[in-house]
Amino acid sequence: MQFSTLLTHLSGGENQPLFLGDDPELKAAAALDQASQGDLSFLEPGNALLAALAETSASALLLPPDPELHAKATERGIAWISLKNPRLGFAEALEQLYPKSPLPCGIHPTAVVDATAVLAEGVHVGALVVIGANSRIGAGCILHPAVVIYPDVEIGPGCELHSHAVLHPGSRLAEECVVHSHAVIGSEGFGFVPTASGWRKMPQTGLVLLEEGVEVGCGSTIDRPAVGETRIGAGSKIDNLVQVGHGVVIGKNCAIAAQVGIAGGAKLGNGVILAGQVGVANRAVIGDGAIASSKSGIHGEVAAGEVVSGYPAIPNRLWLRCSAVFSKLPDMARNLRQLNQSN
Amino acid sequence: MQFSTLLTHLSGGENQPLFLGDDPELKAAAALDQASQGDLSFLEPGNALLAALAETSASALLLPPDPELHAKATERGIAWISLKNPRLGFAEALEQLYPKSPLPCGIHPTAVVDATAVLAEGVHVGALVVIGANSRIGAGCILHPAVVIYPDVEIGPGCELHSHAVLHPGSRLAEECVVHSHAVIGSEGFGFVPTASGWRKMPQTGLVLLEEGVEVGCGSTIDRPAVGETRIGAGSKIDNLVQVGHGVVIGKNCAIAAQVGIAGGAKLGNGVILAGQVGVANRAVIGDGAIASSKSGIHGEVAAGEVVSGYPAIPNRLWLRCSAVFSKLPDMARNLRQLNQSN
Amino acid sequence: MQFSTLLTHLSGGENQPLFLGDDPELKAAAALDQASQGDLSFLEPGNALLAALAETSASALLLPPDPELHAKATERGIAWISLKNPRLGFAEALEQLYPKSPLPCGIHPTAVVDATAVLAEGVHVGALVVIGANSRIGAGCILHPAVVIYPDVEIGPGCELHSHAVLHPGSRLAEECVVHSHAVIGSEGFGFVPTASGWRKMPQTGLVLLEEGVEVGCGSTIDRPAVGETRIGAGSKIDNLVQVGHGVVIGKNCAIAAQVGIAGGAKLGNGVILAGQVGVANRAVIGDGAIASSKSGIHGEVAAGEVVSGYPAIPNRLWLRCSAVFSKLPDMARNLRQLNQSN
Repeated sequence: MQFSTLLTHLSGGENQPLFLGDDPELKAAAALDQASQGDLSFLEPGNALLAALAETSASALLLPPDPELHAKATERGIAWISLKNPRLGFAEALEQLYPKSPLPCGIHPTAVVDATAVLAEGVHVGALVVIGANSRIGAGCILHPAVVIYPDVEIGPGCELHSHAVLHPGSRLAEECVVHSHAVIGSEGFGFVPTASGWRKMPQTGLVLLEEGVEVGCGSTIDRPAVGETRIGAGSKIDNLVQVGHGVVIGKNCAIAAQVGIAGGAKLGNGVILAGQVGVANRAVIGDGAIASSKSGIHGEVAAGEVVSGYPAIPNRLWLRCSAVFSKLPDMARNLRQLNQSN
Repeated sequence: MQFSTLLTHLSGGENQPLFLGDDPELKAAAALDQASQGDLSFLEPGNALLAALAETSASALLLPPDPELHAKATERGIAWISLKNPRLGFAEALEQLYPKSPLPCGIHPTAVVDATAVLAEGVHVGALVVIGANSRIGAGCILHPAVVIYPDVEIGPGCELHSHAVLHPGSRLAEECVVHSHAVIGSEGFGFVPTASGWRKMPQTGLVLLEEGVEVGCGSTIDRPAVGETRIGAGSKIDNLVQVGHGVVIGKNCAIAAQVGIAGGAKLGNGVILAGQVGVANRAVIGDGAIASSKSGIHGEVAAGEVVSGYPAIPNRLWLRCSAVFSKLPDMARNLRQLNQSN
Repeated sequence: MQFSTLLTHLSGGENQPLFLGDDPELKAAAALDQASQGDLSFLEPGNALLAALAETSASALLLPPDPELHAKATERGIAWISLKNPRLGFAEALEQLYPKSPLPCGIHPTAVVDATAVLAEGVHVGALVVIGANSRIGAGCILHPAVVIYPDVEIGPGCELHSHAVLHPGSRLAEECVVHSHAVIGSEGFGFVPTASGWRKMPQTGLVLLEEGVEVGCGSTIDRPAVGETRIGAGSKIDNLVQVGHGVVIGKNCAIAAQVGIAGGAKLGNGVILAGQVGVANRAVIGDGAIASSKSGIHGEVAAGEVVSGYPAIPNRLWLRCSAVFSKLPDMARNLRQLNQSN
């Protein structure tokens, strides 16, 4: 695809400064330092930009609005366009340069679809998929090989379920959700009542609800509660190997990184970001737009917009200072002993 | 089901104070603050009880032995019974209100069962299940779709294996075990010998043994050892995404929360509770009834009955105090500098 | 197998001191304290050796070069050989005592192999395996039941894929790789661009490459990047439930323990060892031979050969001293208050 053609697919690319050069034919995309001829790449503020630009072999670039970078790229004869959000442009460009080949509609002959299941139009059901009784699959859904859907599941239109995803009874997916390989939606919550003769299972009769556009990563598990629902808000994205306990409520447009664990009954507002390996305790409450850095452990409440770190989690700036002092504790202890002696 | 009928199914409900009211017809169960007409709910000590009771729309309640609560419920015309353990009663009630429909006995025609496998009476083998050579499945077991059982596995009566559970060679499950989706039992332990030419695999010839009533959560992995066995004691419950290394021994009635990792050769006594994301190091030893709070990291030994926290784990009360001081470290450091100057 | 026969299979066992005794017939292998008659066992420096040796019921032993142990074993009539690396010898012995029965070549009739897939000679394809279009499977590969291979995957000779392993499009495995149950190779990286209307997916068009001899544990996930590759170096071993983010580069002969998380773009050198539950942040760089102890959190850079601990990770020795002081923080705070008063 020629650079000039690609530009017509970039939102916000109209009337932006650009340099077409020889309007290169783009065959692929690559990181700036790995790009070769025929590659598109992008820069965003924060990279060591000018140096990288001086060395790249890319044929075309999406640049931030920085005249110095523009001049440099032109000087090197590299085609470019200036975009407010070059990363977004790169996402749009990748879709053009690497178009997905559509999967054919229809049910693979080895799939096992219960007679009472209802499939809308345009569904792709791959090999060895299992669809249980009374489940409903929305229009245009893609079920890759070996997906298992238990009975009484409802999936909205345009969802994609990757190989070995499992949806347990009662799960509800709104439109355009993506469930990656080995994710488990709607499994039994870890609910047991202590008794004199050991742990007694609390039946988990609730369900899991994913609102529109939710994405659940590989191997992640989202449990259903004893009663009521576990709910993931619209547009929230969950990375791999994340545990979401029974009765958790996650707001809209949250981003939950890999290996996070959210214990039963916790509530996250909208736009919450949890970095990798964060733990959230039972019934903790996290306000809108709060951010927890990696490995934080959250009990109680985090106010909206707060940035927390550490375990137990405290405000990030305080934690950074405390952690710096932590590594000087042996010196402080020695200092204290000296002061005791001199007093 | 009418409330009066439900009461006959609650253990310890005989001769307890109760108020039948108009003996409501119960259709479902719900949390107190989400209950509507026709719902059963429960209270247990520790909730903000009276206020919640004043507002609930539930039709019937399981209450703790608290006359004030009883009076309030009666006043509002809500049917109730007093139970020593309302949570246990709620578990029993859920079984009545949401009865599981039994799965039919038999082997789905798409299942692949080796000719040498032995299946007892009353087994349900779902679609696309694979059962390897010389494996034995006990009476009444339920194997959901796409379970894979390698050769030489023995499963006791009454076990339930959820979709995509995998049991590796040599695994032994006693009666009434539950293995959730994507759990892996009996996989090769992570055993490699360092050599001049790299890591050399130590063959893992041992096996994994689950005693009766063990439950293993979604995506959890329990490795077999080089020699000997990895053993999970009767009644122990393991949540999702837990790693149990080769040669680990877990006692009876333990509760292991999500994302816990237990390294090779560690030994847990009976009744041990590990909260989420706890790590237990190689060959650590944890005594009966010990508790580790979330994210603790345990090396060496934890005495029976001890409650530990932190990394490295220390007694919980001490850790709470230390953590409180941690957040004042910058102040302490400044204070110390002042003292140095004034001395 | 008789002890004398076994010895011919142990590398470095020639011309070593030994005591054949009555050249016992060995039927199995066991840990020293669990061994019974007919068992082979081994000791290595660091065990409480003499005492254990005095009590074992093993029939034959692989011993380190320690004349005192040799004498004791002879005295007890236990056959033994002295080896520089008894653990390595034990690995070799296990292969002899527990030979794997080879799986037959061929494609199970229930497997679903695309017509355009290319399978080399001697491949075992188990029940209900799915192999997508244009994928290539090398000679002698073993695909256990229910493995799913998406289109456009290339697998070198001699690889073993365990049940429910999933390989996503573009994945490249060199020879002799092992992928354990429920591992996911080549899934979409967690790449989203924040926009005014929420998270927008960054297409993940790159691929995952496992060099020769790589092993990936159960449930581990290795994501492909937006562009370029995620690469695991030759001979590196990855335990269960590990997350490897998009664009990560791991060197040769690394050992990554269970539940480690490595965020996008991080780079590990050769021979790096990460203990359980370690977290590595985006774009962190870890030098050759560095070691991180369990639960460490690594940002920025770790120099080659360094041993780090804690979060944020600091040199291990320093961390040990700081942690020791941490548990005395309440005393220090009190001490400081006293000094303030007395000043």
